[in-house]
Amino acid sequence: MTGALLDHIKIYCNLNAEATAGINKWFTASVVKKRTFIVKEGEACHHIYFVAKGCLRMFYLDDKGTEQTIQFALENWWMTDIDAFNKKGTSSFSIQAIEDTVVLGITKNDWDLLLQEQPGLEKYFRIIYERAYAASLFKMRFFRLPKDEMYRHFCTKYPQFIQRIPQKLLASFLGFTPEYLSELRKRKQP
Amino acid sequence: MTGALLDHIKIYCNLNAEATAGINKWFTASVVKKRTFIVKEGEACHHIYFVAKGCLRMFYLDDKGTEQTIQFALENWWMTDIDAFNKKGTSSFSIQAIEDTVVLGITKNDWDLLLQEQPGLEKYFRIIYERAYAASLFKMRFFRLPKDEMYRHFCTKYPQFIQRIPQKLLASFLGFTPEYLSELRKRKQP
Repeated sequence: MTGALLDHIKIYCNLNAEATAGINKWFTASVVKKRTFIVKEGEACHHIYFVAKGCLRMFYLDDKGTEQTIQFALENWWMTDIDAFNKKGTSSFSIQAIEDTVVLGITKNDWDLLLQEQPGLEKYFRIIYERAYAASLFKMRFFRLPKDEMYRHFCTKYPQFIQRIPQKLLASFLGFTPEYLSELRKRKQP
Repeated sequence: MTGALLDHIKIYCNLNAEATAGINKWFTASVVKKRTFIVKEGEACHHIYFVAKGCLRMFYLDDKGTEQTIQFALENWWMTDIDAFNKKGTSSFSIQAIEDTVVLGITKNDWDLLLQEQPGLEKYFRIIYERAYAASLFKMRFFRLPKDEMYRHFCTKYPQFIQRIPQKLLASFLGFTPEYLSELRKRKQP
């Protein structure tokens, strides 16, 4: 079940057979049915997850009880509330499968041990976090755009999300009403 | 001039004398006078910078020509347009000193060579990016708060910014008018 993860690591790091076997043992694969939560806001966040197949979303409830979606993770993406994971605190976000999803999870203690045992993986995680940080800088600019322009940029940069994410969740992520998103979609069609 | 950087690296990684000397040679220290730009939006972004002393801000010009400040970097923080730096593309942001500032800069080519020569630094940069990413998740939630609550959270989490950042720039970062920020500050005083 860790094949997808090992393939992803190999894009960035050299892994010999011994290292491959050494990584395998630390991860637990889980099949998460659509709509199931793997992290709940206000509860402990024990794991960081690699998406081997499917799609996760991260969200929180605002003061009015409305779900605010802030991130999606498709195949080969990692997801957790990184602050809660590192500090073993309670999560500020919920994480839910929006398709039937296969995740590979690892606890903070095991993740620390994995990196001690396989220091070559520091490069892999440096690149993972570097990309996540670069995406966050893009978002800082993106979310201040006029709404129609924001949608146009999003379609160009993340076409795979447009196809796979339900319209209601995409609207929540973009800060639109579902009706406004539907209107923008119609306008975009020839 | 690289003392502050080496001290910061030593918090996270063991550095022997050889490694210390090996790191020193890759960085160039520059004194950047207040208001001077070290990166300009639309131009090449050759370096990543470590702030040894002082403060930088990152911003872009929106459609109306208004400066939108998205990040500050005090001592021990790193700053660059990471996407432009990695891809050797043009920067989507400007970076300006808001105090007289001492930065240690390194080019992308040298940074790659440094990491090849000192793979132990992968851990340091993994932690740097991990923290930057964690801060970005916090911001995603923070920027959707009601304005007065946003300011209260900001004061609690980043008191050093309240003291050092000019009110006009802080207002730009928070998405307030300077007048509204001034009003909030008065309300907060006993």
